[in-house]
Amino acid sequence: MITNFYHDPAVDAVLISPRQMEIRLRLPSHTVQVRLLYWNKYKLEHYGIQSQPMFLWAESEGYKYYRVVLTGMESRIRYLQYKFEYESGGERVWLHSDGVKHTAELKGGFSLSYAGDRDAVHPPDWISNRVWYQIFPERFSNGDKDNDPENTEPWGSIPTRDNHMGGDLQGIIDRLDYLGILGINALYLNPIFSATSNHKYDTTDYFTIDPQFGTADDLCRIVRECHERDIKVILDLVINHCGYYHPFFQDVITKGEQSEYKEWFYINHYPVTRSEENYDSVGYYQWMPKLRTSNPAVQQYIFDIVSFWQKESGIDGWRIDVADEVEISFLRELKSCVKRINPNAIIIAEIWDDAKRLMLSGAVDSVMNYELRTLLFDYILDRSITLRQFHARLVHLTHRYSLAELHQMFNLLGSHDTERILTRCGLNDENLLLLLAVQFMLPGNPTVYYGDEIGMTGDNDPYCRASMPWEELSLDHPLFRQLRFWIGRKKTDSALQNGEVELQFFEEFECYLIRRFNESQDMRLLVNFSSAEVQLKPIYQKLGMVGGSCVYRSSELDEADAILHPREFHLYQTTI
Amino acid sequence: MITNFYHDPAVDAVLISPRQMEIRLRLPSHTVQVRLLYWNKYKLEHYGIQSQPMFLWAESEGYKYYRVVLTGMESRIRYLQYKFEYESGGERVWLHSDGVKHTAELKGGFSLSYAGDRDAVHPPDWISNRVWYQIFPERFSNGDKDNDPENTEPWGSIPTRDNHMGGDLQGIIDRLDYLGILGINALYLNPIFSATSNHKYDTTDYFTIDPQFGTADDLCRIVRECHERDIKVILDLVINHCGYYHPFFQDVITKGEQSEYKEWFYINHYPVTRSEENYDSVGYYQWMPKLRTSNPAVQQYIFDIVSFWQKESGIDGWRIDVADEVEISFLRELKSCVKRINPNAIIIAEIWDDAKRLMLSGAVDSVMNYELRTLLFDYILDRSITLRQFHARLVHLTHRYSLAELHQMFNLLGSHDTERILTRCGLNDENLLLLLAVQFMLPGNPTVYYGDEIGMTGDNDPYCRASMPWEELSLDHPLFRQLRFWIGRKKTDSALQNGEVELQFFEEFECYLIRRFNESQDMRLLVNFSSAEVQLKPIYQKLGMVGGSCVYRSSELDEADAILHPREFHLYQTTI
Repeated sequence: MITNFYHDPAVDAVLISPRQMEIRLRLPSHTVQVRLLYWNKYKLEHYGIQSQPMFLWAESEGYKYYRVVLTGMESRIRYLQYKFEYESGGERVWLHSDGVKHTAELKGGFSLSYAGDRDAVHPPDWISNRVWYQIFPERFSNGDKDNDPENTEPWGSIPTRDNHMGGDLQGIIDRLDYLGILGINALYLNPIFSATSNHKYDTTDYFTIDPQFGTADDLCRIVRECHERDIKVILDLVINHCGYYHPFFQDVITKGEQSEYKEWFYINHYPVTRSEENYDSVGYYQWMPKLRTSNPAVQQYIFDIVSFWQKESGIDGWRIDVADEVEISFLRELKSCVKRINPNAIIIAEIWDDAKRLMLSGAVDSVMNYELRTLLFDYILDRSITLRQFHARLVHLTHRYSLAELHQMFNLLGSHDTERILTRCGLNDENLLLLLAVQFMLPGNPTVYYGDEIGMTGDNDPYCRASMPWEELSLDHPLFRQLRFWIGRKKTDSALQNGEVELQFFEEFECYLIRRFNESQDMRLLVNFSSAEVQLKPIYQKLGMVGGSCVYRSSELDEADAILHPREFHLYQTTI
Repeated sequence: MITNFYHDPAVDAVLISPRQMEIRLRLPSHTVQVRLLYWNKYKLEHYGIQSQPMFLWAESEGYKYYRVVLTGMESRIRYLQYKFEYESGGERVWLHSDGVKHTAELKGGFSLSYAGDRDAVHPPDWISNRVWYQIFPERFSNGDKDNDPENTEPWGSIPTRDNHMGGDLQGIIDRLDYLGILGINALYLNPIFSATSNHKYDTTDYFTIDPQFGTADDLCRIVRECHERDIKVILDLVINHCGYYHPFFQDVITKGEQSEYKEWFYINHYPVTRSEENYDSVGYYQWMPKLRTSNPAVQQYIFDIVSFWQKESGIDGWRIDVADEVEISFLRELKSCVKRINPNAIIIAEIWDDAKRLMLSGAVDSVMNYELRTLLFDYILDRSITLRQFHARLVHLTHRYSLAELHQMFNLLGSHDTERILTRCGLNDENLLLLLAVQFMLPGNPTVYYGDEIGMTGDNDPYCRASMPWEELSLDHPLFRQLRFWIGRKKTDSALQNGEVELQFFEEFECYLIRRFNESQDMRLLVNFSSAEVQLKPIYQKLGMVGGSCVYRSSELDEADAILHPREFHLYQTTI
């Protein structure tokens, strides 16, 4: 039996601090009594063999999933070896690196190396209670008419790929009170450096704020005022590519092979004209030529950008645009640079697919969790998979990372690159309320895309980038109220910040349970995904729960906790 | 069904050049007709869906193991998505990132990102035909009596942990003709920088050759003369720790908290005296205090060492001592530094257990493959596992890496840190001949520890470090002859250098087959591990082989290829 398909020490053991290793294990469902045994290979006689029970957090498709955090016996994790002990078919067995054994020998244990100071997951010390709010600056709020570009169209115009409506940094400052009412405590701004387009992903000058948005002073004010309100601020770092009109690329166009910048790009043919064949670009989009980050001059240029803005404005980190197309080698170097200036800065990578390679490489702290979004939509909105399949995929996704990494995931339902979430929900508020409940209960930092909280709608780009309708704003909007509720929960409930996760499904009732808990709090979200009423008693019995701990119901139809209505959820809480 | 236990895109897809991705897949044994389908997500209409058959290289424990190399459709791998197509129970199905599907949709394909220039496996251009020879300098050859330390004992004395016998760099130069007869073409020298002990792992000056061994000039001469003979040379880099008498550590001992070097180490208590509690060291061995590689000053110091010797002597790379205890973050930076000076330098990590984490991190090129050694001993020498278990573990080990990575593994049977291989074999030449055959047939660079080729014996340190008995040397020693044979094969047969590997076992006969092949050559090693004679006809029939292609037999008893004697092997070769 090949053990590493149950536990791969290179993948399923993650250093979550210089003293702590989180260890994941998957075993066949018939196994019970699972413990981690560990010992110091040089000091076995002194310390002996120690053991810890492992926590069973899910069962799916014939397997049980376990986690445990191993804390170093000394100043740090080192020289430890470990194996797993469990019962299988009534017999006690041990899983070693070289197989399952039937005797309690130590040979072949898995090994941990000495933990490097910098090799651990290093979450920013402020991350655990954050809810992100993403702002597309051109469309959030126009605070300064003087910097509006020519041909600015009236606020509320239909968004096109090219038009401008005048949003700017002063507008963001003006609306901080509003954001305070909503309760969010972290801001992610789409690009604000000088660029040609309205989205500013085609940078022409990385060292200035786009004049249509304001000045470096405005950015400093945003950061200062946000920090006074305990709101963190990160910017969009677009270094996979620059804009076609960036002077270095223009230099290559003008001077061809004589340009000192020709090695900054991936030029295929000279002379360089704007065509697909002539140079590499992002997604074959020739307005955005790809930067060659293996060139030390490019590296230094980007380090200078990052250093300049971190020092100038005191921002709290970066979201890396199309990070999955940037050299991982460079992303690691970039992370060193960012963290040297501010060890508590965060780096969040844009990626639309499986993020494991990026996370495993230690190149980023967190990713835009589009993969989770896809899964939630497949089941909750599209019903293209069964509850059993949903559970299997959610367990799989949760098993791919340590809890420490999951706790800092950027969990989004939509962005400037997708249709609006309410539109994706078929304008069905109820669907969106279900999504929000699941989004806030799962480990990670929930994200709100500006305007989603008041039910803005629109198809994908450009329609998801409409101007925020400040005139029609109602803080009584059910979405706004529900978001305030969940944001409040995330900010106050430690179980949602750092708690374990447990996942369970009830196939016969088509109900799903997400549990989060720590030593002081125990929270359970129970959702009825079926179209029938579900009697709660049998579920309570299975879970050993008392219904009276229900602290929130999504419907007001309930009768004394007896029934969970179709597409309704209950939130239960026990303070320990 | 959770697909990623069959293919984990973060682990089982390895960029082996900026244009090539090697993809591994494990499927249940009942599946057939396995193909990789791939397409460009932006250019589907232009290129369509392309496909390649996957190569089945082993079957074990209910699974089939496949590989394929995907070559970019354009200048490099980018924007590709892929899925696997196969037949299962007579039905055609597709394995996607989100599960097994029964329709030919494209949604949910695995994604490849744009390949970073530096993210690929980058084998030195000289590695494929190399056989390493490891020299422990104090005991290999005494070429210069003038540099012998005081109290040097006569050559041939019983080795102790402390004694000296006068081996030096001039001795190595003197014996290059001998190494030429053996045929090896890569040298790994144990440490040669100034240090206190006879093994020199307790460095006191990284910038000088230990005077007992010679001078920087001697090293330059070794490298020059080796390069003239097409022999590569690597040195031992001991940067996890330095020696207790290194002046920087002595400074901490003398000045305590006032020392400018106190942050170079892991000091736990002041004043610092030589005790286990006071500072971290390697394996609690207080003569070797651990260096703090997260300190930028330490990093720069080590970069300076590496740069100095690479430029001064032209060496071809480094073996990193106890690499699994060094920060991976630092190893990556070290690799950048080494490769910047010489892109064809190799970095080989010492590690005794699973090497996947180090390899996956891109921090090293290769590792000392002690894990393979353990497996070979478990079956071939100790018979503590069955042939079926041996096969399962060998398949597992081979499935953990890309072929490109396997091709540069440092495959050793013994070293200065183990008992001598002949001693480990119970002084049984026949066992050792079997081990050599398997060692040379598997992907990677075989390694000879000095003196093993003439049957030196000895238990682990200090007895494995005896002086080379030049007086009694016989080039007619059967081990020497056999090694010459295999080394010749490795240097001339391209299938052993870059070929695919195929593994197969015949349980009923207790025979094992290792096949290596490429487009020009097909080699098969067939070994009888049983204690009975095996009729070859049924095996030939199973394999569709003609016995006449046998080019080497380990026994002279054979009768016209009809029988494989106990613990005998045949080597078959077909030139295509």
